[in-house]
Amino acid sequence: MRPLYFDHNATTPVAPRVFSAMRPYFEDGFGNPGSAHIWGLQARKAVDKARSQVAALIGARPEEIVFTGCATESNNAVLFGHFPDRSGHLAVSALEHPSVLAPAMALSAAGVTVDVISSGPDGVVCPADAAARILPRTRLVSVMLANNETGVIQPVADMAALAHAAGAAMHVDASQAVGKIDVNVDTLGADFLTIAGHKLYAPKGVGALYVRTGRELPPLLLGGGQEGGLRSGTENVALIAGLGEACAMAAADVAAEAARQERIRDAVEAGLLGLGYQAMIHGRGAPRLPNTTFIGFAGFRAVDILSECVTEDIGCGAGAACHGADTSISPVLAAMGVDRPYAEGTIRLSLGRSTTMEDGMELVERLGRILRRLSR
Amino acid sequence: MRPLYFDHNATTPVAPRVFSAMRPYFEDGFGNPGSAHIWGLQARKAVDKARSQVAALIGARPEEIVFTGCATESNNAVLFGHFPDRSGHLAVSALEHPSVLAPAMALSAAGVTVDVISSGPDGVVCPADAAARILPRTRLVSVMLANNETGVIQPVADMAALAHAAGAAMHVDASQAVGKIDVNVDTLGADFLTIAGHKLYAPKGVGALYVRTGRELPPLLLGGGQEGGLRSGTENVALIAGLGEACAMAAADVAAEAARQERIRDAVEAGLLGLGYQAMIHGRGAPRLPNTTFIGFAGFRAVDILSECVTEDIGCGAGAACHGADTSISPVLAAMGVDRPYAEGTIRLSLGRSTTMEDGMELVERLGRILRRLSR
Repeated sequence: MRPLYFDHNATTPVAPRVFSAMRPYFEDGFGNPGSAHIWGLQARKAVDKARSQVAALIGARPEEIVFTGCATESNNAVLFGHFPDRSGHLAVSALEHPSVLAPAMALSAAGVTVDVISSGPDGVVCPADAAARILPRTRLVSVMLANNETGVIQPVADMAALAHAAGAAMHVDASQAVGKIDVNVDTLGADFLTIAGHKLYAPKGVGALYVRTGRELPPLLLGGGQEGGLRSGTENVALIAGLGEACAMAAADVAAEAARQERIRDAVEAGLLGLGYQAMIHGRGAPRLPNTTFIGFAGFRAVDILSECVTEDIGCGAGAACHGADTSISPVLAAMGVDRPYAEGTIRLSLGRSTTMEDGMELVERLGRILRRLSR
Repeated sequence: MRPLYFDHNATTPVAPRVFSAMRPYFEDGFGNPGSAHIWGLQARKAVDKARSQVAALIGARPEEIVFTGCATESNNAVLFGHFPDRSGHLAVSALEHPSVLAPAMALSAAGVTVDVISSGPDGVVCPADAAARILPRTRLVSVMLANNETGVIQPVADMAALAHAAGAAMHVDASQAVGKIDVNVDTLGADFLTIAGHKLYAPKGVGALYVRTGRELPPLLLGGGQEGGLRSGTENVALIAGLGEACAMAAADVAAEAARQERIRDAVEAGLLGLGYQAMIHGRGAPRLPNTTFIGFAGFRAVDILSECVTEDIGCGAGAACHGADTSISPVLAAMGVDRPYAEGTIRLSLGRSTTMEDGMELVERLGRILRRLSR
């Protein structure tokens, strides 16, 4: 059976052109960008080029891009960096990734006042709740651009307007959005924006952080003063070059690729809804990423579906996990208030550049078989 | 002219077998280790294998190894992690890398009492000073295993004994030592030990931290709870696999390779001292890494030598940097109290696996030409 990988929101393959862009820096171009000789200069040029490529994709200036080890590091740097004295007020959405929510909880324990902006049942942050929680004393607002589970695109520009009116800075975790939809830091009103390499066909182990000119951020990692002092540590040259190339690739065809994947995704959803089970597509009424389907089948358990997916050579994610006899619902579904039978039977299907319409139809067929087997 | 790379302490090339070990994870093995399907399991196995390989090289258990983005992150995690309330006492050596000294300074500014253990003129931390500065209230002692500039190997086991007698934990930045000399966490008495991938033929962008069983360390990065909760962020699978392979490679031949490089290094030093200039090899009286020569030529400026090295296709480092009219001496040379004329003319030559005796002799010849030209 041909493997069907429908888990691109977990991680993407490395694109061949990304691998080609990295390879020279694993070979002759191995220098340390901090070295004042030809080996060092070659490496420095690679980092500079990548910085321009990343900046170009999101409408930023190269000097506004800081390379990090991962999106988690970018998110941690922004949250912890805004509260060096562990006081003040932070507003985050309930839909954020653990790499935002966990630092927020740690800050709360350390003395920062943290308010959580709730989500509507459609998976969109609630504007009225945001208006009530973003206050004159708020220092930072953190709302993601696209949710990793539902794919729902959040009204970040509106959140940024509220943040700025209150005198706060706006952080946008765009890990799931960059490379999938058009992202522009000015349109969004982002002061800080997080990028994850491995969600857009660069490898795991590299991320970036956009820092708007004029915004200050104390570094999370101190040392040799690399990245303009904002992120010490010898530059991850090869993977940085790969991230740059991935951004250049996305810049070239993001709209066309989004439209292509959306057609397949919509066909998959139509196919799944047509299987005859009680099913619910989370966030369907809201703007969503073109590659993501988060679908709940009432009366099924995600763990059983996933277990059958192994047999059917399907790679996908779940919206619920089993811990012994307990089933824990994803915090995102909980925040949306999804009914438990649907939440427990929720799986995530996320498409990518290599996904074809044939793959999509084959996926529907295999999931149909799985649900029939599980219904017996 | 054939390029002569003598800057392995800045960064090493990626070994071909390391590249081969990484490559599958840039290709079909691209899964996220957190995913419960075959793609994820493949990636998880790669990380587990690498963890065992790293542990084996330093006499640790696999579960004591945490993968990080770089040695700077490992060092920052240990230092900041020990002082969550920004109080207490820290003792660090004056010879530490900026990724230890800068966090120490930040902690000092935040309220931690920091004592700096001085260095003798031989580049070894002063035992009497250490005994005076490691106190019953000391929480952490941080002394590197081998200095990045001089290559001098520090009496870490003695420092650990002092630390443990005082009830403090012992951190060892072994970035420059692992892969070059035998390193064993038990012999050293290390509770925490830092490893840098790109100093031992793995790429830049990956590091590790040894955390002794029973020692606690709050994580620096919070989020998805990877690495047993000690380091969140999707695992850098390919580079982790590379670091594992690099450690396996070192485990197989570290003693033989050290002896080989030392013969060449000693011949280079004899050759350079025989050129007839006033020269001084820093730390020569102390135990040193087998691959490192830190040599000062009185009456020359490092910046001039390095500039000529570009012409002669030599890659090496300097012990002094020029900022306009000022020459700043490396803090390590300053801590050793090296006379200014020697300090200003100091360059670092560091050998590696690909360095041959012929390269060493060619290096001496070219440096001889350079010094003659500069003497005119």
